[in-house]
Amino acid sequence: MKAEIITIGDEILIGQIIDSNSAHIANELFNIGIEVFQISSVSDDKEHIIETIKNAEKCSDLIILTGGLGPTNDDITKSVLTEYFNDTLIENEDVLLNIKNIWKKHIKQPLLKVNLDQALVPSRSIVLMNYMGSAPGIWYEKRSKIFIALPGVPTEMKSILELEVLPKLISTFDLPVAVKKTILTYGLGESMIAKRINDWENGLPKSIKFAYLPSLGRVRLRISSIGINRNEVANKIESEIQKLLPLISDIFVGFEEDNSIEKIIGSQLVKLNKTLSIAESCSGGGLAAKFTANPGSSKFFKGGMVAYDTKSKIRILGVNPNLISEQSVVSLKVAESMAIGVKKIFSSDYAISTTGNAGPTKGESDTDIGNVCIAIVTPEKVFSRQFSFGTGRERVLTKTINMALTLFQREIFKN
Amino acid sequence: MKAEIITIGDEILIGQIIDSNSAHIANELFNIGIEVFQISSVSDDKEHIIETIKNAEKCSDLIILTGGLGPTNDDITKSVLTEYFNDTLIENEDVLLNIKNIWKKHIKQPLLKVNLDQALVPSRSIVLMNYMGSAPGIWYEKRSKIFIALPGVPTEMKSILELEVLPKLISTFDLPVAVKKTILTYGLGESMIAKRINDWENGLPKSIKFAYLPSLGRVRLRISSIGINRNEVANKIESEIQKLLPLISDIFVGFEEDNSIEKIIGSQLVKLNKTLSIAESCSGGGLAAKFTANPGSSKFFKGGMVAYDTKSKIRILGVNPNLISEQSVVSLKVAESMAIGVKKIFSSDYAISTTGNAGPTKGESDTDIGNVCIAIVTPEKVFSRQFSFGTGRERVLTKTINMALTLFQREIFKN
Repeated sequence: MKAEIITIGDEILIGQIIDSNSAHIANELFNIGIEVFQISSVSDDKEHIIETIKNAEKCSDLIILTGGLGPTNDDITKSVLTEYFNDTLIENEDVLLNIKNIWKKHIKQPLLKVNLDQALVPSRSIVLMNYMGSAPGIWYEKRSKIFIALPGVPTEMKSILELEVLPKLISTFDLPVAVKKTILTYGLGESMIAKRINDWENGLPKSIKFAYLPSLGRVRLRISSIGINRNEVANKIESEIQKLLPLISDIFVGFEEDNSIEKIIGSQLVKLNKTLSIAESCSGGGLAAKFTANPGSSKFFKGGMVAYDTKSKIRILGVNPNLISEQSVVSLKVAESMAIGVKKIFSSDYAISTTGNAGPTKGESDTDIGNVCIAIVTPEKVFSRQFSFGTGRERVLTKTINMALTLFQREIFKN
Repeated sequence: MKAEIITIGDEILIGQIIDSNSAHIANELFNIGIEVFQISSVSDDKEHIIETIKNAEKCSDLIILTGGLGPTNDDITKSVLTEYFNDTLIENEDVLLNIKNIWKKHIKQPLLKVNLDQALVPSRSIVLMNYMGSAPGIWYEKRSKIFIALPGVPTEMKSILELEVLPKLISTFDLPVAVKKTILTYGLGESMIAKRINDWENGLPKSIKFAYLPSLGRVRLRISSIGINRNEVANKIESEIQKLLPLISDIFVGFEEDNSIEKIIGSQLVKLNKTLSIAESCSGGGLAAKFTANPGSSKFFKGGMVAYDTKSKIRILGVNPNLISEQSVVSLKVAESMAIGVKKIFSSDYAISTTGNAGPTKGESDTDIGNVCIAIVTPEKVFSRQFSFGTGRERVLTKTINMALTLFQREIFKN
C-alpha cells in the first residue's frame, strides 16, 4: 500500500511554521508497513488542493490530508473534499455531542454557530472522532482508494491518527511489515565510512535499503526493509548488522531504533538505579530539556543548573575564580569543576557539564567561537574533552548537546 | 515569480527527520517577494525526482531542490539533474580548491576520490560555492526557468542560500515586495476571535491575505500582502492593523514580526538594562533554552535552575518544606517561592518559575496531570497563576513555556 501526505496551509508555504505533521504521519505509517510515496504542501486554495488530490490519487492508494479543518474562513478542506466527492454535508450527532462536551469541560465560552457547524460532515464519509478538539477527521473510500482528512493542529492530528486511523488501517488491510534500524556513529565523515564499508554495502540484498544520515557531528546509518513476516525481515536486517558492526566498532555509539539517545540513556540509568544532574553554560538548558521532554525522566534526572554567567559558575557551582582567570571560563578544568559542583548540589550519581562559546560574539569568554568543553563525573572519576565546533550559533549548540549525549552514553554503556 | 521547493531523501518519507529546510527556504523566498506555490518531498529515486521536477517546471518559475548532493551511493541529485539537462560533468577548480581547504583546515583526514568527485559539476550549470561543506550548489537556467540544487544538511543549505542564491535572485530579477505581520493573541479561541472581527475581515481588500494560526494556548493572526512598493504595502497592512487592534485589545499580546516572543523579551530587557533568571520544574530547562538559543542572551540572562525533584526545590531554591506539604509541590505559593529563590541565587532583576505535572504519571506531585503554576518576580512584586493544560506531555510542556513567555512579556511591556 502506497500513501501520499498532503499538508494544507499558507503558513507552511511562507515558511511561518515547520511542517512536523507529515514526519509524524510518515513514521506511524512506516511502522505499520505503509510506504509514503510523496509528501506535498499546498496553500489554502481550492483549485490547487483538488489538483494535488487528483495527482495523488493516480499514484497512491491512501491519501492523507492535514490542515484546513478549523472553523474560520481560511479553512476550506472539508468543503473542497465534499465537492471533490460530489457529496453534501449532514449533521453528525456524535460529533455534536463531543463538541458540546469539550465546550462544557474545557472552553467555558459560548458555543458559536461556526463551532456547531463542525458537526456537519460529508454524508458518505466515515467520521473519525476528535477528542482533543472540535473538528472531526473524515475518511472517504472511492474505488479501493482511501482519502483521509485530519486537522492541522498537531495534538488533534496525532490523537485521531492514533485512536482512529491506524487501528482502522491495520484491521482493514493485510499490511506488510516494515522494520528499520538506525546505527549511531561518531568520529568519521560519511565518505570515510562509505569507503570502509563499501564491500558490505555492495553485497546487500536488493530488499534491504541502506542510507547515510549525516548531521552535526554524527553520521546515522539506516537499514530498512519491508516484507511479509516480521521475524524474517528483522532477522535479515540483524544478520547484515552483525556483518557491519565489526567494520565500524571504533565509531559505533549505539542503536537509535525508535528511541532517541536521551531515551536510551534514561532507560539505562533507571536500570542501573543511578541519577543524573547537569550544569550548562553554552547549551543553556537545552541538554536538560532533552531529558525532561520524555515521560519518566523524574526517575533519574535530579535537576540542572544553567550557569550562564561567570559569576554564577563561581557562586553557585563553586568553581574557583582563580581557575577561571588562569585557565579561561571555557576550559577543561572549569568544565570539570562545574560538573563536580552540580553533582554535589543535587547529590546525583552522574553529572554532565558544558561550557563554551557559541558566538556570534565572544561574550564573557576569551576563547574562540565554537570552542566547547564538556565534562562528565561518574561515581568513580571525572573526565573532560575539548572540541572545536566551528561557527554558527545553532550548529555549535546542537553539536554541544549531541556530543554531550554521545560521550555520556558511551560512558554508561561501558560496563 | 512562483517557486516550488523539492526536498529529496528517503529519511523524510519514513518520518525519520522533520523537513525544516523547506520552511527556511520558503521564509527567505517570501522575504524577497517570491511566492512558494508548492513544497514536495520525494525519495532518492531517479524516476520520481525527474517526474517531480517536470511537474514543478509546468507551474513554477523557480525550482529549488535540497538533498542528495552528498558523496555516498544514495546521493543521486547531481546525476539526475545532469541527465535531466542532457549535460556532462566537468571538474571545477574553485570547488576543488574549496574542498582541499576544508579538508586541510577542519576534516584532517585523507581526501578520498568521492570527496574529490564533488568538484565535478554539470558543464552548463553555474556553481554555487559551499563554504560549510564539500558539495557545491548547482544553478541551471532553461527557457527563463531556474533550477537550483542545494545540499540537504541544513547549515550547508542555509549558507549557500544566504551567500549565493538570494543575492543572485535579487540582482537578476525585478522582484515584488512581500510584507507580513503577525499578531500574537492569548485568551480566546479562533472561532470567538473570528466572530468578533468578522466585519473587519470581510472588509479587507483583496490584495491582503489574512489567516488564523491556532497553537497551544495562543492564536496568531497573520496579515500579509505582496506589491511593488514596500512602503505602500507596509502602509496598507499597517492601516488595517490599526482598525483591528481596538477590536482585540484585551487579548493582544504583541507582534511577532520576524522575531519570536523570546527575542522580543530579550531586546526589551536589554533596553531596560534588566536581567532575568529562571527556575524550572516541569518545563525542565526548555524555557531557559528558548532564551539561550538566541545570540546576545548573555546580556540579560543570568542563569537558571532545573529543580526537577522536590528535594532540590527545598535545598537549592529554599522553598519551605512545610509549604510543599501544606500546599502541594504544584501550587501558587511554591511557584512563587521558587521564583523568589532563583532571583536571589542569581541576583537578577526578574525571575520566572514553573511547577506542574506534565504526566503521563503523577510522579512526586499529588496534583492532576496538566495542572501547572507559573510565577513571576519583578523588582516590585511577586505574582503567580494556575492553569489546567489538559493531557499529553508535549502539549503540557509547550503550553507551559508559551504561557510563561506570554505572562512575562505582558509584564515587562506594561510600562
